Amino acid sequence: MNRKKEQQKQQAAQTAANYIKEGMTIGLGSGTTAHYLIREAGKKYAQGLHFYGIATSRESEQLAASLGIPLLGPKQAGKIHLAIDGVDEIDRDFRAVKGGGGALLREKIIASRADDVIWIMDESKLVEHLGTFPFPVETVPFGMPFVKLRIREMGEVPVLRVRNGSPYLTDSGNHILDIQFAQDADIPAAAERIRKMPGVVETGYFGQMCSRIVAGTSSGVKVMENPHRVIE
Amino acid sequence: MNRKKEQQKQQAAQTAANYIKEGMTIGLGSGTTAHYLIREAGKKYAQGLHFYGIATSRESEQLAASLGIPLLGPKQAGKIHLAIDGVDEIDRDFRAVKGGGGALLREKIIASRADDVIWIMDESKLVEHLGTFPFPVETVPFGMPFVKLRIREMGEVPVLRVRNGSPYLTDSGNHILDIQFAQDADIPAAAERIRKMPGVVETGYFGQMCSRIVAGTSSGVKVMENPHRVIE
Repeated sequence: MNRKKEQQKQQAAQTAANYIKEGMTIGLGSGTTAHYLIREAGKKYAQGLHFYGIATSRESEQLAASLGIPLLGPKQAGKIHLAIDGVDEIDRDFRAVKGGGGALLREKIIASRADDVIWIMDESKLVEHLGTFPFPVETVPFGMPFVKLRIREMGEVPVLRVRNGSPYLTDSGNHILDIQFAQDADIPAAAERIRKMPGVVETGYFGQMCSRIVAGTSSGVKVMENPHRVIE
Repeated sequence: MNRKKEQQKQQAAQTAANYIKEGMTIGLGSGTTAHYLIREAGKKYAQGLHFYGIATSRESEQLAASLGIPLLGPKQAGKIHLAIDGVDEIDRDFRAVKGGGGALLREKIIASRADDVIWIMDESKLVEHLGTFPFPVETVPFGMPFVKLRIREMGEVPVLRVRNGSPYLTDSGNHILDIQFAQDADIPAAAERIRKMPGVVETGYFGQMCSRIVAGTSSGVKVMENPHRVIE
């Protein structure tokens, strides 16, 4: 574990937690950075701030529940005021790739319904070009072999994500194909093409969905507003 | 059961079964009309024609297996030469809506990978305008309430499909929202918009995916080639 990196994640989480206000319903992200956020949110709840959470993965749900944060299911959450989540990588135009942790589908459902979206990160996530991270594609198991063939026909190499020797299963019971795009690939265009393929449930491309980012850096926490937010 | 309708379905199935050739891998559709096709295919198999089937639903899989047709899973089927399936409704431009039976996702995955696609039907399925039939939208359970809200925001009324008092579950473990569009709705445009919503796995809109249709009518079986086939 890189100590500086963890410190930056935690500082970003502390800053982002200040956006949680009394009475809000908060989308709780997944992954290591989001877990810092959930812990900060849990502290605020313990100090008397009341809000609801809606979790983007079973792991985040368990962590939030253990901290006493009251959780809502998707049918109960009439409104999501704010979603806070990590990213795998993000470029200068606020276009992000997420899904290394496998929770991309619920993360995207929640982010697309939230009034406000904050992405938190350490500075290593800020990239010039997307594509350093494998690009995840969530498919229904029945469609996986066919989607794999179609992605190969695009000239890309999809790799089925495996855990403990078996195909990885998402919280929704789907598989994930990871693609390592070439450096000069047009990821937004490829993502749009892939998302339309029958059998594909979601991709890890999160256009310009965030309202702002909060990044821990070696020169302190930086908050950047996204002037081009697009709600997908 | 309407006897004339059933006769037309069966006649269409008999004609379509003649397109099955030795050595082919055949996508086997779902629903009553496709079941006539599977029975005709079973007869051909019993008479010595050898081919493989790949089924679009558990029901069709069981029927085909009971008739002795050897079945392949999606990982085994290297190529699908021909898919034969029913439709709920189809217009003069060969644009169809499918999914009343709930198998739309696998049907679309198979049709999109088949070299050749034949849709079979009785004449009541030939419509001037799409929209007489409820339009199905398959969503992951977690995303269903959010997709429902978004469809409502489009001005449409989504109804959760229910079976025996519980939300209907597709073979992939998803829910279905049915939409009754207004008579003048632009269904292809609405389908494209809905398909992009996070949480939506597939819709019942099957553009111009078929190579030809085979329709049983009161004046005999009609075969119509689609000059504008679009592979989705």
